[in-house]
Amino acid sequence: MRSQKDSFSFTPIAFLSSVFDHKFGTPRQGGLAPNSRASLTLERRWRDKGMLDSLQGFSHVWLVSVFHQNRNLNFPSKIHPPRLEGKTVGVLASRSPHRPNPVGLTLAKIERVEGDTLWVSGVDLVEGTPILDIKPYLAEADRPAEYSSGWAERAAETQVPCAFAPEADAQVDELVRAGKITERDRFVNLAKEVLALDPRPLSYRARVDETFAVVLDGVDVHARYAAGAFTVVAVKPFSAGDNKAANSIQEK
Amino acid sequence: MRSQKDSFSFTPIAFLSSVFDHKFGTPRQGGLAPNSRASLTLERRWRDKGMLDSLQGFSHVWLVSVFHQNRNLNFPSKIHPPRLEGKTVGVLASRSPHRPNPVGLTLAKIERVEGDTLWVSGVDLVEGTPILDIKPYLAEADRPAEYSSGWAERAAETQVPCAFAPEADAQVDELVRAGKITERDRFVNLAKEVLALDPRPLSYRARVDETFAVVLDGVDVHARYAAGAFTVVAVKPFSAGDNKAANSIQEK
Repeated sequence: MRSQKDSFSFTPIAFLSSVFDHKFGTPRQGGLAPNSRASLTLERRWRDKGMLDSLQGFSHVWLVSVFHQNRNLNFPSKIHPPRLEGKTVGVLASRSPHRPNPVGLTLAKIERVEGDTLWVSGVDLVEGTPILDIKPYLAEADRPAEYSSGWAERAAETQVPCAFAPEADAQVDELVRAGKITERDRFVNLAKEVLALDPRPLSYRARVDETFAVVLDGVDVHARYAAGAFTVVAVKPFSAGDNKAANSIQEK
Repeated sequence: MRSQKDSFSFTPIAFLSSVFDHKFGTPRQGGLAPNSRASLTLERRWRDKGMLDSLQGFSHVWLVSVFHQNRNLNFPSKIHPPRLEGKTVGVLASRSPHRPNPVGLTLAKIERVEGDTLWVSGVDLVEGTPILDIKPYLAEADRPAEYSSGWAERAAETQVPCAFAPEADAQVDELVRAGKITERDRFVNLAKEVLALDPRPLSYRARVDETFAVVLDGVDVHARYAAGAFTVVAVKPFSAGDNKAANSIQEK
Protein backbone atom coordinates (compact mmCIF):
# COMPACT_ATOMS: atom_id res chain seq x y z
CA MET A 1 0.00 0.00 0.00
CA ARG A 2 2.71 2.43 1.01
CA SER A 3 5.18 1.35 -1.62
CA GLN A 4 6.73 4.15 -3.60
CA LYS A 5 5.42 2.51 -6.72
CA ASP A 6 2.02 3.94 -5.83
CA SER A 7 1.63 6.93 -8.02
CA PHE A 8 -1.20 9.32 -8.69
CA SER A 9 -2.12 10.68 -12.06
CA PHE A 10 -3.66 14.10 -12.64
CA THR A 11 -5.03 15.75 -15.75
CA PRO A 12 -4.78 19.54 -16.13
CA ILE A 13 -8.08 21.38 -15.76
CA ALA A 14 -6.68 24.34 -17.74
CA PHE A 15 -3.54 25.69 -19.39
CA LEU A 16 -2.33 29.16 -18.57
CA SER A 17 -2.00 32.01 -21.07
CA SER A 18 0.74 34.19 -19.63
CA VAL A 19 2.73 37.31 -20.53
CA PHE A 20 5.81 35.18 -19.93
CA ASP A 21 6.42 33.48 -23.26
CA HIS A 22 9.57 31.79 -22.06
CA LYS A 23 10.88 30.44 -18.82
CA PHE A 24 13.80 32.86 -18.96
CA GLY A 25 12.72 36.14 -17.38
CA THR A 26 9.78 34.60 -15.53
CA PRO A 27 10.05 35.81 -11.92
CA ARG A 28 10.71 33.27 -9.21
CA GLN A 29 7.68 34.58 -7.33
CA GLY A 30 4.79 36.29 -9.05
CA GLY A 31 4.10 38.74 -6.26
CA LEU A 32 7.31 40.47 -7.25
CA ALA A 33 5.86 41.33 -10.67
CA PRO A 34 2.38 42.70 -9.96
CA ASN A 35 2.06 43.90 -13.55
CA SER A 36 2.26 40.38 -14.93
CA ARG A 37 -1.02 39.08 -16.31
CA ALA A 38 -2.37 35.66 -17.11
CA SER A 39 -5.67 33.98 -17.80
CA LEU A 40 -7.06 30.51 -18.04
CA THR A 41 -10.21 28.88 -19.34
CA LEU A 42 -11.27 25.52 -17.97
CA GLU A 43 -10.82 22.60 -20.35
CA ARG A 44 -13.93 21.62 -22.27
CA ARG A 45 -15.09 18.79 -20.00
CA TRP A 46 -15.22 21.16 -16.99
CA ARG A 47 -17.09 23.99 -18.71
CA ASP A 48 -20.66 25.22 -18.24
CA LYS A 49 -20.91 23.68 -14.79
CA GLY A 50 -20.39 26.80 -12.69
CA MET A 51 -17.19 25.43 -11.17
CA LEU A 52 -15.76 28.95 -10.72
CA ASP A 53 -18.99 30.41 -9.32
CA SER A 54 -18.51 32.47 -6.15
CA LEU A 55 -14.80 32.89 -6.81
CA GLN A 56 -15.72 36.52 -7.37
CA GLY A 57 -15.34 38.13 -3.98
CA PHE A 58 -12.07 36.40 -3.24
CA SER A 59 -9.02 38.58 -3.79
CA HIS A 60 -6.57 35.74 -4.51
CA VAL A 61 -6.37 32.15 -5.69
CA TRP A 62 -3.80 29.41 -5.37
CA LEU A 63 -2.82 27.92 -8.70
CA VAL A 64 -1.49 24.39 -8.31
CA SER A 65 0.51 23.80 -11.47
CA VAL A 66 3.04 21.52 -13.11
CA PHE A 67 6.55 22.75 -13.86
CA HIS A 68 6.19 21.20 -17.28
CA GLN A 69 9.36 22.70 -18.71
CA ASN A 70 11.57 20.69 -16.36
CA ARG A 71 12.79 18.15 -18.83
CA ASN A 72 15.69 17.13 -16.65
CA LEU A 73 14.52 14.43 -14.25
CA ASN A 74 17.71 14.64 -12.23
CA PHE A 75 17.81 17.47 -9.78
CA PRO A 76 20.07 18.29 -6.87
CA SER A 77 18.81 17.51 -3.35
CA LYS A 78 20.30 20.79 -2.26
CA ILE A 79 20.14 24.03 -4.16
CA HIS A 80 21.87 27.40 -4.16
CA PRO A 81 19.18 30.06 -3.92
CA PRO A 82 20.44 33.00 -6.05
CA ARG A 83 20.12 35.41 -3.15
CA LEU A 84 22.17 33.26 -0.75
CA GLU A 85 25.24 33.53 -2.98
CA GLY A 86 26.71 30.08 -2.49
CA LYS A 87 25.04 28.74 0.65
CA THR A 88 22.91 25.64 0.01
CA VAL A 89 19.51 24.65 1.36
CA GLY A 90 17.55 21.42 0.99
CA VAL A 91 15.37 21.47 -2.10
CA LEU A 92 12.26 20.96 0.08
CA ALA A 93 13.25 24.05 2.07
CA SER A 94 13.07 26.03 -1.19
CA ARG A 95 10.54 26.86 -3.86
CA SER A 96 12.84 25.68 -6.65
CA PRO A 97 10.94 24.19 -9.61
CA HIS A 98 13.42 21.30 -9.64
CA ARG A 99 11.97 19.03 -6.94
CA PRO A 100 10.87 15.41 -6.46
CA ASN A 101 7.38 16.14 -7.79
CA PRO A 102 7.47 19.21 -10.05
CA VAL A 103 4.31 20.74 -8.60
CA GLY A 104 4.10 24.54 -8.45
CA LEU A 105 2.15 26.67 -6.00
CA THR A 106 1.42 30.27 -6.94
CA LEU A 107 -0.69 32.84 -5.18
CA ALA A 108 -2.27 34.99 -7.90
CA LYS A 109 -4.43 38.07 -7.59
CA ILE A 110 -7.88 37.67 -9.13
CA GLU A 111 -8.57 40.37 -11.69
CA ARG A 112 -11.82 39.03 -13.07
CA VAL A 113 -13.94 35.87 -13.30
CA GLU A 114 -16.29 35.36 -16.22
CA GLY A 115 -17.99 31.99 -16.67
CA ASP A 116 -15.21 29.45 -17.02
CA THR A 117 -12.44 32.01 -17.49
CA LEU A 118 -10.26 33.50 -14.80
CA TRP A 119 -7.96 36.51 -15.21
CA VAL A 120 -5.16 36.93 -12.69
CA SER A 121 -2.09 39.06 -12.07
CA GLY A 122 1.13 38.69 -10.12
CA VAL A 123 1.99 35.32 -11.60
CA ASP A 124 5.32 33.54 -11.92
CA LEU A 125 4.16 31.01 -14.50
CA VAL A 126 5.12 30.65 -18.11
CA GLU A 127 2.81 30.42 -21.13
CA GLY A 128 1.12 27.03 -21.42
CA THR A 129 1.62 25.98 -17.79
CA PRO A 130 -0.72 23.07 -16.95
CA ILE A 131 -3.01 23.94 -14.04
CA LEU A 132 -4.09 21.04 -11.84
CA ASP A 133 -6.20 22.93 -9.35
CA ILE A 134 -7.54 26.35 -8.42
CA LYS A 135 -8.25 27.03 -4.75
CA PRO A 136 -9.54 30.21 -3.15
CA TYR A 137 -7.22 32.01 -0.73
CA LEU A 138 -8.80 31.45 2.68
CA ALA A 139 -7.26 33.74 5.26
CA GLU A 140 -8.37 31.53 8.17
CA ALA A 141 -6.45 28.58 6.74
CA ASP A 142 -3.63 30.21 4.77
CA ARG A 143 -2.60 33.18 6.88
CA PRO A 144 -0.72 32.35 10.07
CA ALA A 145 -0.89 35.06 12.73
CA GLU A 146 2.81 34.69 13.43
CA TYR A 147 5.37 33.36 11.03
CA SER A 148 8.98 33.38 10.01
CA SER A 149 10.45 32.66 6.61
CA GLY A 150 13.81 31.22 7.64
CA TRP A 151 16.71 31.79 5.31
CA ALA A 152 14.49 33.68 2.88
CA GLU A 153 13.84 36.35 5.50
CA ARG A 154 17.44 37.10 6.17
CA ALA A 155 18.20 37.45 2.46
CA ALA A 156 15.93 39.91 0.70
CA GLU A 157 15.73 39.82 -3.08
CA THR A 158 18.00 42.42 -4.63
CA GLN A 159 16.35 44.98 -6.85
CA VAL A 160 18.42 46.19 -9.77
CA PRO A 161 17.56 49.67 -11.06
CA CYS A 162 16.32 49.70 -14.63
CA ALA A 163 15.71 52.45 -17.20
CA PHE A 164 14.62 52.59 -20.84
CA ALA A 165 16.99 54.22 -23.36
CA PRO A 166 15.26 56.89 -25.53
CA GLU A 167 15.41 54.62 -28.62
CA ALA A 168 13.71 51.82 -26.70
CA ASP A 169 11.05 54.21 -25.46
CA ALA A 170 10.35 55.26 -29.06
CA GLN A 171 10.09 51.60 -30.10
CA VAL A 172 7.53 51.01 -27.36
CA ASP A 173 5.47 53.89 -28.83
CA GLU A 174 5.67 52.27 -32.27
CA LEU A 175 4.51 48.92 -30.91
CA VAL A 176 1.63 50.60 -29.12
CA ARG A 177 0.59 52.24 -32.41
CA ALA A 178 0.91 48.90 -34.21
CA GLY A 179 -1.31 47.24 -31.59
CA LYS A 180 1.45 44.86 -30.44
CA ILE A 181 1.46 46.43 -26.98
CA THR A 182 -2.01 47.14 -25.61
CA GLU A 183 -1.25 48.81 -22.30
CA ARG A 184 1.88 50.97 -22.44
CA ASP A 185 2.37 51.64 -18.72
CA ARG A 186 1.69 48.08 -17.69
CA PHE A 187 4.17 46.81 -20.28
CA VAL A 188 6.95 49.20 -19.22
CA ASN A 189 6.36 48.47 -15.54
CA LEU A 190 6.35 44.72 -16.15
CA ALA A 191 9.67 44.95 -18.03
CA LYS A 192 11.15 46.93 -15.15
CA GLU A 193 9.81 44.47 -12.55
CA VAL A 194 11.25 41.50 -14.41
CA LEU A 195 14.66 43.10 -14.92
CA ALA A 196 14.78 44.45 -11.35
CA LEU A 197 14.89 40.81 -10.19
CA ASP A 198 17.92 40.20 -12.42
CA PRO A 199 16.76 37.24 -14.48
CA ARG A 200 20.27 36.39 -15.70
CA PRO A 201 21.62 33.00 -14.63
CA LEU A 202 24.58 33.31 -12.25
CA SER A 203 26.90 32.13 -15.02
CA TYR A 204 25.87 35.13 -17.11
CA ARG A 205 26.34 37.80 -14.52
CA ALA A 206 30.00 38.37 -15.23
CA ARG A 207 29.24 39.28 -18.84
CA VAL A 208 28.87 43.02 -18.46
CA ASP A 209 27.81 45.07 -21.48
CA GLU A 210 26.46 42.04 -23.30
CA THR A 211 22.90 42.38 -24.57
CA PHE A 212 20.31 39.76 -23.63
CA ALA A 213 16.56 39.65 -24.09
CA VAL A 214 13.45 38.60 -22.22
CA VAL A 215 10.25 37.92 -24.12
CA LEU A 216 7.17 39.55 -22.58
CA ASP A 217 3.77 39.15 -24.16
CA GLY A 218 5.26 38.45 -27.57
CA VAL A 219 7.71 41.35 -27.38
CA ASP A 220 11.51 41.07 -27.15
CA VAL A 221 12.96 43.35 -24.51
CA HIS A 222 16.70 43.72 -25.07
CA ALA A 223 18.69 44.91 -22.10
CA ARG A 224 22.27 45.47 -21.05
CA TYR A 225 23.80 45.48 -17.58
CA ALA A 226 26.45 48.02 -16.62
CA ALA A 227 27.47 49.82 -13.44
CA GLY A 228 24.85 48.13 -11.28
CA ALA A 229 21.86 48.90 -13.49
CA PHE A 230 19.95 47.59 -16.49
CA THR A 231 19.26 49.69 -19.56
CA VAL A 232 16.61 48.55 -22.01
CA VAL A 233 18.27 49.23 -25.36
CA ALA A 234 15.69 47.85 -27.79
CA VAL A 235 12.10 46.64 -27.84
CA LYS A 236 10.82 44.69 -30.85
CA PRO A 237 8.31 42.02 -31.78
CA PHE A 238 9.64 38.61 -30.77
CA SER A 239 11.17 36.51 -33.48
CA ALA A 240 12.69 33.23 -32.42
CA GLY A 241 15.75 33.32 -34.69
CA ASP A 242 16.49 36.97 -34.03
CA ASN A 243 18.70 37.32 -31.05
CA LYS A 244 21.45 34.85 -30.34
CA ALA A 245 22.23 36.08 -26.86
CA ALA A 246 18.58 35.94 -25.90
CA ASN A 247 18.12 32.46 -27.28
CA SER A 248 21.18 31.09 -25.63
CA ILE A 249 19.85 32.20 -22.25
CA GLN A 250 16.35 30.95 -22.97
CA GLU A 251 17.63 27.45 -23.45
CA LYS A 252 19.23 27.24 -20.02
CA MET B 1 -0.07 19.03 -26.84
CA ARG B 2 -2.89 20.65 -24.94
CA SER B 3 -5.22 17.72 -25.17
CA GLN B 4 -6.85 16.72 -21.93
CA LYS B 5 -5.41 13.28 -22.38
CA ASP B 6 -2.09 14.73 -21.22
CA SER B 7 -1.75 13.66 -17.67
CA PHE B 8 1.00 13.91 -15.10
CA SER B 9 1.96 11.23 -12.66
CA PHE B 10 3.39 11.87 -9.21
CA THR B 11 4.79 9.56 -6.57
CA PRO B 12 4.40 10.46 -2.89
CA ILE B 13 7.61 11.56 -1.18
CA ALA B 14 6.15 10.61 2.22
CA PHE B 15 3.01 9.38 3.97
CA LEU B 16 1.64 11.27 6.93
CA SER B 17 1.27 9.86 10.43
CA SER B 18 -1.60 11.83 11.92
CA VAL B 19 -3.67 11.95 15.11
CA PHE B 20 -6.69 11.68 12.81
CA ASP B 21 -7.14 7.95 12.31
CA HIS B 22 -10.28 8.40 10.24
CA LYS B 23 -11.61 10.94 7.84
CA PHE B 24 -14.64 11.52 10.06
CA GLY B 25 -13.71 14.13 12.64
CA THR B 26 -10.76 15.48 10.67
CA PRO B 27 -11.20 19.28 10.61
CA ARG B 28 -11.82 20.98 7.31
CA GLN B 29 -8.90 23.31 7.98
CA GLY B 30 -6.04 22.35 10.25
CA GLY B 31 -5.49 25.83 11.64
CA LEU B 32 -8.75 25.34 13.53
CA ALA B 33 -7.25 22.46 15.50
CA PRO B 34 -3.85 23.71 16.66
CA ASN B 35 -3.47 20.73 19.00
CA SER B 36 -3.49 18.26 16.13
CA ARG B 37 -0.12 16.66 15.45
CA ALA B 38 1.39 14.82 12.54
CA SER B 39 4.76 13.73 11.30
CA LEU B 40 6.30 12.42 8.14
CA THR B 41 9.54 10.76 7.14
CA LEU B 42 10.70 10.96 3.54
CA GLU B 43 10.41 7.75 1.57
CA ARG B 44 13.60 5.72 1.37
CA ARG B 45 14.81 6.96 -2.01
CA TRP B 46 14.78 10.58 -0.80
CA ARG B 47 16.57 9.99 2.49
CA ASP B 48 20.08 10.97 3.60
CA LYS B 49 20.30 13.72 1.00
CA GLY B 50 19.60 16.72 3.22
CA MET B 51 16.41 17.58 1.33
CA LEU B 52 14.85 19.12 4.45
CA ASP B 53 17.98 21.05 5.46
CA SER B 54 17.34 24.71 6.32
CA LEU B 55 13.63 24.08 6.82
CA GLN B 56 14.44 24.82 10.46
CA GLY B 57 13.90 28.52 10.82
CA PHE B 58 10.67 28.51 8.87
CA SER B 59 7.56 28.60 11.02
CA HIS B 60 5.25 26.88 8.52
CA VAL B 61 5.22 24.56 5.53
CA TRP B 62 2.75 23.84 2.78
CA LEU B 63 1.91 20.17 2.46
CA VAL B 64 0.71 19.30 -1.02
CA SER B 65 -1.18 16.06 -0.58
CA VAL B 66 -3.58 13.65 -2.24
CA PHE B 67 -7.12 13.22 -0.93
CA HIS B 68 -6.61 9.48 -1.26
CA GLN B 69 -9.81 8.52 0.56
CA ASN B 70 -12.00 9.98 -2.18
CA ARG B 71 -13.09 6.75 -3.77
CA ASN B 72 -16.01 8.36 -5.52
CA LEU B 73 -14.78 9.77 -8.82
CA ASN B 74 -18.03 11.62 -9.40
CA PHE B 75 -18.30 14.88 -7.55
CA PRO B 76 -20.67 17.81 -7.83
CA SER B 77 -19.46 20.91 -9.72
CA LYS B 78 -21.11 22.99 -7.05
CA ILE B 79 -21.02 22.28 -3.36
CA HIS B 80 -22.90 23.35 -0.25
CA PRO B 81 -20.32 24.56 2.28
CA PRO B 82 -21.65 23.48 5.71
CA ARG B 83 -21.49 27.04 7.01
CA LEU B 84 -23.52 28.50 4.14
CA GLU B 85 -26.54 26.38 5.04
CA GLY B 86 -27.88 25.63 1.60
CA LYS B 87 -26.24 28.20 -0.69
CA THR B 88 -23.97 26.65 -3.32
CA VAL B 89 -20.56 27.72 -4.59
CA GLY B 90 -18.46 26.36 -7.45
CA VAL B 91 -16.19 23.54 -6.32
CA LEU B 92 -13.13 25.55 -7.45
CA ALA B 93 -14.29 28.42 -5.22
CA SER B 94 -14.09 26.02 -2.27
CA ARG B 95 -11.53 23.86 -0.52
CA SER B 96 -13.71 20.75 -0.76
CA PRO B 97 -11.69 17.53 -1.12
CA HIS B 98 -14.05 16.46 -3.90
CA ARG B 99 -12.58 18.30 -6.89
CA PRO B 100 -11.35 17.57 -10.43
CA ASN B 101 -7.85 16.70 -9.21
CA PRO B 102 -7.99 15.59 -5.57
CA VAL B 103 -4.94 17.59 -4.52
CA GLY B 104 -4.87 19.02 -1.00
CA LEU B 105 -3.07 22.11 0.24
CA THR B 106 -2.46 22.45 3.97
CA LEU B 107 -0.50 25.05 5.85
CA ALA B 108 1.07 23.27 8.82
CA LYS B 109 3.10 24.67 11.68
CA ILE B 110 6.59 23.23 11.92
CA GLU B 111 7.25 21.74 15.34
CA ARG B 112 10.60 20.12 14.64
CA VAL B 113 12.82 18.94 11.79
CA GLU B 114 15.27 16.11 12.34
CA GLY B 115 17.10 14.62 9.38
CA ASP B 116 14.44 13.34 7.02
CA THR B 117 11.59 13.63 9.51
CA LEU B 118 9.30 16.59 9.96
CA TRP B 119 6.89 17.12 12.88
CA VAL B 120 4.01 19.52 12.35
CA SER B 121 0.83 20.69 14.07
CA GLY B 122 -2.42 22.28 12.97
CA VAL B 123 -3.11 19.72 10.26
CA ASP B 124 -6.36 18.70 8.62
CA LEU B 125 -5.03 15.48 7.13
CA VAL B 126 -5.88 11.91 7.95
CA GLU B 127 -3.48 9.08 8.82
CA GLY B 128 -1.64 7.74 5.77
CA THR B 129 -2.20 10.78 3.55
CA PRO B 130 0.23 10.69 0.61
CA ILE B 131 2.40 13.81 0.52
CA LEU B 132 3.53 14.96 -2.92
CA ASP B 133 5.49 18.03 -1.93
CA ILE B 134 6.68 20.09 1.02
CA LYS B 135 7.27 23.80 0.44
CA PRO B 136 8.39 26.42 2.94
CA TYR B 137 5.94 29.23 3.76
CA LEU B 138 7.45 32.30 2.13
CA ALA B 139 5.74 35.44 3.37
CA GLU B 140 6.86 37.49 0.37
CA ALA B 141 5.10 35.09 -2.00
CA ASP B 142 2.28 33.67 0.11
CA ARG B 143 1.06 36.60 2.17
CA PRO B 144 -0.87 39.24 0.27
CA ALA B 145 -0.88 42.67 1.93
CA GLU B 146 -4.58 43.06 1.25
CA TYR B 147 -7.02 40.26 0.74
CA SER B 148 -10.60 39.16 1.00
CA SER B 149 -11.97 35.67 1.42
CA GLY B 150 -15.28 36.05 -0.39
CA TRP B 151 -18.14 33.92 0.85
CA ALA B 152 -15.94 32.35 3.52
CA GLU B 153 -15.45 35.74 5.16
CA ARG B 154 -19.12 36.48 5.56
CA ALA B 155 -19.80 33.08 7.10
CA ALA B 156 -17.59 32.31 10.07
CA GLU B 157 -17.29 28.73 11.27
CA THR B 158 -19.59 28.04 14.19
CA GLN B 159 -17.98 26.88 17.40
CA VAL B 160 -20.01 24.44 19.44
CA PRO B 161 -19.26 24.40 23.17
CA CYS B 162 -17.92 21.11 24.43
CA ALA B 163 -17.36 19.62 27.88
CA PHE B 164 -16.18 16.28 29.28
CA ALA B 165 -18.55 14.36 31.57
CA PRO B 166 -16.88 13.30 34.85
CA GLU B 167 -16.86 9.61 33.77
CA ALA B 168 -15.10 10.55 30.54
CA ASP B 169 -12.56 12.62 32.45
CA ALA B 170 -11.83 9.63 34.67
CA GLN B 171 -11.40 7.44 31.57
CA VAL B 172 -8.86 9.91 30.18
CA ASP B 173 -6.91 9.58 33.44
CA GLU B 174 -6.95 5.80 33.08
CA LEU B 175 -5.69 5.99 29.50
CA VAL B 176 -2.93 8.37 30.57
CA ARG B 177 -1.88 5.84 33.25
CA ALA B 178 -2.03 3.02 30.69
CA GLY B 179 0.20 5.02 28.34
CA LYS B 180 -2.47 5.19 25.62
CA ILE B 181 -2.63 8.98 25.91
CA THR B 182 0.77 10.63 26.24
CA GLU B 183 -0.14 14.29 26.67
CA ARG B 184 -3.34 14.77 28.65
CA ASP B 185 -3.95 18.46 28.02
CA ARG B 186 -3.17 18.26 24.35
CA PHE B 187 -5.52 15.30 23.95
CA VAL B 188 -8.41 16.98 25.75
CA ASN B 189 -7.89 20.23 23.85
CA LEU B 190 -7.72 18.41 20.54
CA ALA B 191 -10.99 16.58 21.28
CA LYS B 192 -12.63 19.90 22.12
CA GLU B 193 -11.25 21.58 18.98
CA VAL B 194 -12.53 18.78 16.78
CA LEU B 195 -15.98 18.71 18.36
CA ALA B 196 -16.25 22.52 18.43
CA LEU B 197 -16.26 22.40 14.62
CA ASP B 198 -19.19 19.96 14.69
CA PRO B 199 -17.86 17.07 12.62
CA ARG B 200 -21.31 15.50 12.13
CA PRO B 201 -22.55 15.35 8.53
CA LEU B 202 -25.56 17.60 7.92
CA SER B 203 -27.78 14.50 7.68
CA TYR B 204 -26.82 13.55 11.26
CA ARG B 205 -27.46 16.88 12.88
CA ALA B 206 -31.12 16.24 13.55
CA ARG B 207 -30.31 13.17 15.66
CA VAL B 208 -30.11 14.79 19.04
CA ASP B 209 -29.03 12.66 22.00
CA GLU B 210 -27.51 9.99 19.78
CA THR B 211 -23.93 9.07 20.64
CA PHE B 212 -21.27 9.17 17.95
CA ALA B 213 -17.50 8.84 18.12
CA VAL B 214 -14.41 10.38 16.59
CA VAL B 215 -11.12 8.50 16.68
CA LEU B 216 -8.18 10.59 17.79
CA ASP B 217 -4.71 9.11 18.05
CA GLY B 218 -6.08 5.60 18.48
CA VAL B 219 -8.65 6.64 21.08
CA ASP B 220 -12.42 6.63 20.61
CA VAL B 221 -14.04 9.83 21.84
CA HIS B 222 -17.78 9.26 22.27
CA ALA B 223 -19.90 12.39 22.34
CA ARG B 224 -23.52 13.42 22.40
CA TYR B 225 -25.14 16.64 21.20
CA ALA B 226 -27.92 18.28 23.20
CA ALA B 227 -29.11 21.82 23.83
CA GLY B 228 -26.48 23.41 21.58
CA ALA B 229 -23.46 21.70 23.14
CA PHE B 230 -21.42 18.52 22.96
CA THR B 231 -20.74 16.34 25.97
CA VAL B 232 -17.97 13.76 25.80
CA VAL B 233 -19.56 10.77 27.50
CA ALA B 234 -16.88 8.11 27.10
CA VAL B 235 -13.23 7.82 26.08
CA LYS B 236 -11.79 4.38 25.29
CA PRO B 237 -9.14 2.72 23.17
CA PHE B 238 -10.34 2.47 19.57
CA SER B 239 -11.74 -0.85 18.48
CA ALA B 240 -13.17 -1.03 14.97
CA GLY B 241 -16.15 -3.24 15.73
CA ASP B 242 -17.08 -1.41 18.88
CA ASN B 243 -19.40 1.43 18.17
CA LYS B 244 -22.07 1.19 15.53
CA ALA B 245 -22.97 4.87 15.53
CA ALA B 246 -19.35 5.84 15.16
CA ASN B 247 -18.71 3.40 12.36
CA SER B 248 -21.76 4.37 10.43
CA ILE B 249 -20.57 7.96 10.38
CA GLN B 250 -17.00 7.01 9.55
CA GLU B 251 -18.12 5.33 6.38
CA LYS B 252 -19.83 8.40 4.97
